[in-house]
Amino acid sequence: MTPLALLLLAATAPVPAQQVAPPPAPPTVSRARPTPLPVAVDPKVAALRDKALGDDVAWAITEGLTTEIGARGTAGSAGQARAREWAVTRLKALGFRNVRIEPYDVPEAWERGIETAEVIAPFPQALKLTALGNSGATPAAGLTGEIAYFDSLNALLLAPESAVRGKIAFVSNAMLPTQDGSSYGSAGSARFVGPNVAAKKGAAAIVIRSIGTDHGRGPHTGSTNFEAGVRPIPAAALSVADAGNLERMVARGRPVTLRLVLTPRIVGTRASGNVVAEVPGTDPRAGVVLIGGHLDSWELGTGAIDDASGLGITTAAAKLVMDAGRPRRTIRVVWFGDEEIGGVGGQAYARAHAGERHATASESDFGADRVWRFETSFADAARPVGDRLAVALAPLGIVRGTGQAGDGTDIAPVIRTGVAGVDLNQSGLRYFDVHHTPEDTLDRVNKDDLRQNVAAWTAMLAIVADAPEEIGPVPPLR
Amino acid sequence: MTPLALLLLAATAPVPAQQVAPPPAPPTVSRARPTPLPVAVDPKVAALRDKALGDDVAWAITEGLTTEIGARGTAGSAGQARAREWAVTRLKALGFRNVRIEPYDVPEAWERGIETAEVIAPFPQALKLTALGNSGATPAAGLTGEIAYFDSLNALLLAPESAVRGKIAFVSNAMLPTQDGSSYGSAGSARFVGPNVAAKKGAAAIVIRSIGTDHGRGPHTGSTNFEAGVRPIPAAALSVADAGNLERMVARGRPVTLRLVLTPRIVGTRASGNVVAEVPGTDPRAGVVLIGGHLDSWELGTGAIDDASGLGITTAAAKLVMDAGRPRRTIRVVWFGDEEIGGVGGQAYARAHAGERHATASESDFGADRVWRFETSFADAARPVGDRLAVALAPLGIVRGTGQAGDGTDIAPVIRTGVAGVDLNQSGLRYFDVHHTPEDTLDRVNKDDLRQNVAAWTAMLAIVADAPEEIGPVPPLR
Repeated sequence: MTPLALLLLAATAPVPAQQVAPPPAPPTVSRARPTPLPVAVDPKVAALRDKALGDDVAWAITEGLTTEIGARGTAGSAGQARAREWAVTRLKALGFRNVRIEPYDVPEAWERGIETAEVIAPFPQALKLTALGNSGATPAAGLTGEIAYFDSLNALLLAPESAVRGKIAFVSNAMLPTQDGSSYGSAGSARFVGPNVAAKKGAAAIVIRSIGTDHGRGPHTGSTNFEAGVRPIPAAALSVADAGNLERMVARGRPVTLRLVLTPRIVGTRASGNVVAEVPGTDPRAGVVLIGGHLDSWELGTGAIDDASGLGITTAAAKLVMDAGRPRRTIRVVWFGDEEIGGVGGQAYARAHAGERHATASESDFGADRVWRFETSFADAARPVGDRLAVALAPLGIVRGTGQAGDGTDIAPVIRTGVAGVDLNQSGLRYFDVHHTPEDTLDRVNKDDLRQNVAAWTAMLAIVADAPEEIGPVPPLR
Repeated sequence: MTPLALLLLAATAPVPAQQVAPPPAPPTVSRARPTPLPVAVDPKVAALRDKALGDDVAWAITEGLTTEIGARGTAGSAGQARAREWAVTRLKALGFRNVRIEPYDVPEAWERGIETAEVIAPFPQALKLTALGNSGATPAAGLTGEIAYFDSLNALLLAPESAVRGKIAFVSNAMLPTQDGSSYGSAGSARFVGPNVAAKKGAAAIVIRSIGTDHGRGPHTGSTNFEAGVRPIPAAALSVADAGNLERMVARGRPVTLRLVLTPRIVGTRASGNVVAEVPGTDPRAGVVLIGGHLDSWELGTGAIDDASGLGITTAAAKLVMDAGRPRRTIRVVWFGDEEIGGVGGQAYARAHAGERHATASESDFGADRVWRFETSFADAARPVGDRLAVALAPLGIVRGTGQAGDGTDIAPVIRTGVAGVDLNQSGLRYFDVHHTPEDTLDRVNKDDLRQNVAAWTAMLAIVADAPEEIGPVPPLR
């Protein structure tokens, strides 16, 4: 037993979890409040959690996927098909049950093409960029246009059409790192909706500063979306360094002309799938504990932190719990497909498993840095489960957050049906340095941090899957 | 007057420099020894040095070149031609005299082409690499071959021809950062001579792990050389991350097959040139103080730390000294061309100025991080000049080193004729993270560190250009 376990036992022994007197029932969903002490957690949970700190399974999966498959691609890609076969073999070898591929189709699959840019005048030179998912295409010979510069999405929104029409809009808002990743929402709007806004104002194309917290040359891709009836314009992200260079050119006051060559295309419907593996539980009526990450990855890097590590973390934790004895609830590990293009795999999962009872849903899709916080959205009766999580996770340096859990593109369709969420939040302070760039490779994963993740997930699964309390349903999110 | 200047004055006022009693004469060249105190430095030097800490000229040059020209290219490139015109305009505007282009030819100019690589088996995926300067070409459709892995250049040297013949040699030695940059010499041999060794053993091609201290996806280019009579083979550097991936594939024990497409070519003789600017001195017989950096840059980045910043630092320092009054010695600032392909501009300079007396030669070509050390190779009579440098540079955090000065590809031909060197060594702890990669861009330059460089060079020039002692000639290096 490690010092961590000793520390935990000293604080919590020996009252069994289910005998702790429940606090007064809160009015609706049990969230943000201090953990009432003493709360006891079964010492077996601490022992299993600390065993997870020596785990090698998560690394083997992360290393294996990034080395033997590399980039998996998105939108029903051939790389995902290879990765699914790899996954089935690996998950069976680990001892999981009911390992299977659940197929679905990806309609209107988008495929990356050539992507180059150069300043034509006044300072001729090449710039590094990458197309955004769902970008329109330029002519094969390229599209040449004058830059219309906006320092923010807001500035683009305020601009009259005459300032944008026929031009290449350039939206360059900077992003700073946040531990909870919330700056992705604010800065990311330039990518999520900027192209649609520019298209509606008549822009010939749009380039944005990458939604990233680095200052490097690897551009950050990611999906954008155009409203129905709006014709997709060429839309790309300059690397942060290249956006800075283009800003300096603009600042000199002369018109800046850019030539873009972007040749993505829509290749029609493609077959794809989720990979599912289970740890069968003893009580089918108690509901499934759904966990997982996503198998697809943008083709620029090898998808190590996005999201091979998430697959490794959740799978390793499930295996540790499985090897410790059969849990009350079935733990279902899903390696979702096609997350990056809007959660196609997650939607397919929700359709295929509609009507089935889920106790909780949790996703690991935020890299492999240390988990610093957990959040839950439990029904009142399950509040003690959250309290036990707080005690079991604290020795890993994990605090209890005050937000509504259920984060993750893949689990969102299940969460929306009223399933409780349990989120284990990794630190986002470095995540957006490499997110969706060529730099998302294995060397970004720290083995010790990865093991801390596995330990957190192991403790969570051990508590949630065996909890005697009823967990959920909860009021559907929003 | 800044605190730095006060600190210096407290230690050194008020004896004029030239009245300090010289220490006992050492037998040959004055090097490595503690500074005898008290040594007095003219307070005007300290004032000028501290004024340099507010300099904006170095930044303006670095920012201007990287923004308005971008990558300059190598080997008589069109980018260098544009940059030379830019330089003449800028140097004249700064008030320098005798601003001119000194033309020369680059024979057998090498030009980069397409450069892609993919693993064919057993784990199909693309890898990121870049051709080394002077690399041979593959057929346009590519060259496919099995990897012969070597963990070091030494392993390749020891290998029998049968282990290499017809294969793609893969030499993967890691490089750790060193403050003095010395690991470039040891690790760099894989690039400098590895391709020649592999070619002589009959390899079809060679890929090396990038000579870099990062772990990113930007491959590090740089020149290699083949002996006369050895036919150049395709030679490229994988990014450090991609080399790691390929190593992991090799470690799985199955043969690994790679396809390379590298289409560089020799384009014949091209016209190029150095840009020269002067601060005329009062005493033509005292010899020229030669300083500078290089104008060419590898086409992957925008050549900010290699070497726009070196041009900015040396030029800004010369201007500060110029504006303070006419020095005894002529300061000549040279923006050398075609350094990256073996110092073609430096050789041309030495030919053009053969027989002219140089007092000292110094080059700034190691980025823009803080200067941490200085070294000299002065004749005995000039030892007090070194002592005064030690006193004037100490408040900037600069120590006196024990090595032989005269470092730099461009000044090497002049140094070899017996000219004294003065080296101001920047820290190399981060330099090889981005050296010769796409990441060599303006954002890598810290403005405060850049100013510390300018201050160091300003103090050095103020002391050396005005020194009443004779400086050099010295015994030629090696």
